[in-house]
Parts: sequence; C-alpha cells; structure tokens
Amino acid sequence: MFKVRKTSGSSSTKTLGYSVNARVWVEKDGELYLGGGRVMLLEKIGELGSIAAAARSMKLSYRNAWLWIDSMNRLAPGPLVEKATGGEKGGHARLTEAGKKAITEYRSLRERFSELVKELK
Amino acid sequence: MFKVRKTSGSSSTKTLGYSVNARVWVEKDGELYLGGGRVMLLEKIGELGSIAAAARSMKLSYRNAWLWIDSMNRLAPGPLVEKATGGEKGGHARLTEAGKKAITEYRSLRERFSELVKELK
Repeated sequence: MFKVRKTSGSSSTKTLGYSVNARVWVEKDGELYLGGGRVMLLEKIGELGSIAAAARSMKLSYRNAWLWIDSMNRLAPGPLVEKATGGEKGGHARLTEAGKKAITEYRSLRERFSELVKELK
Repeated sequence: MFKVRKTSGSSSTKTLGYSVNARVWVEKDGELYLGGGRVMLLEKIGELGSIAAAARSMKLSYRNAWLWIDSMNRLAPGPLVEKATGGEKGGHARLTEAGKKAITEYRSLRERFSELVKELK
C-alpha cells in the first residue's frame, strides 16, 4: 500500500496520493555543513578519485564542487578531501579518514529519518 | 550539553557547534499540501477567526495567505478553512473539522521528527 521514494538527503512515504517528506542536513554555527548533495559529492570523489569526474557525474560545475569542498573542509574538525598533487597521482583527489567518517555518519542519520518516514503509515 | 531549537516545521539539535536539522512536509500528488508555514496559518485562523488577522500576525500578505488556503482546500479531502459570510460574522473565517484534524496530524508528525532529532546525540 505504501511506496517509499528516496532522493538525495530526503525521504518520503506515500499513501492515497499523500506523501510525507523529510529532509535532513547538518549545520555548523548556522552554516550548511553536510546535506544530501554534499555527501553525494564526497561519495563520488571516493569512488572516482577526482573532483572533476565527481562533479561531472553529478552535473555539478567544477567551481561549485570546489566551493562545497572548501566549505566542508573549513567547517569540519579536519579536511574531508585532499588533493593528491605531483607524481603519478597529480590532479587526483581523495577522501581523508574524516571524509569517510562524515559519509558514514550522515548516511546513518539519513537512515534513521528514512525509517521514521517508512513507519508513518 | 544539547540545545534543541525548534522553528516552524523544522527541528534541530546541537552539539559542539554542529546541529542536525530536519524539515518535514506533506505533499499531495507531488504538490505541497501541508508544511510548517501553512499549518501555522491554519492555527492562527483558528485563534483569530480571520484570514486577514492571521496573515498579519505572520507578516504574510493577504494574497499569499489566500493562495495557501486555496491550495490546501483543493488538495485536502474536504476544505480546511471556510469563510463565514453575512450577518454579524461577515468577513470572518473558521476552521472546519478537517482543518482542525490537519493541524493535529501535522503536529503529531512533526513531534515524532523532533523526538528523533533530540535523540541524535
């Protein structure tokens, strides 16, 4: 009877044409730190090893991807993404341990909200 | 250690400068039906018995208040607000039983999300 639709950072459950929707995000001192889009960008960087490729896969401009990363690196206790410059890996980027942890924590947060949305029958 | 801040339709919990935020709303066939602002408008109409006074108390234009009400009345199973025209009550508005029920249901939905946000320590 219920259909659950999940999009980046949000959850919804549907009954008789009505759907409950929820969005979840984390702020630091009132500024956006982690949300669905930002965490997806981190995931793609982890997958693809490149900010340009990650941005492209999300149809996000490179400039915006950099602004998001810059903001996350600044607001996090330590940088989430670091550029691997020089040598064979020049131009590549990777997640730090803090970056991997941020993804895990956000995913678990979102999962709890999705569970609640699913419960709302 | 935790501060909980609640605004219309959203919840947040704070720790060490980081805060988890959630927003919840109900759609009908993909269109916004009930959210924090709309439910506050319903509550104010119930309190003040007038759309104009309710809009004013929220610093909302009368036109926007009407658009919200029109949309809610159209998307709900039955109208949530009705105008009491003629006689002593001319120009006044009141909530229908469906309107009161919509407030209660939305409040309970929001409460459950707030509880979850508070748990996230």
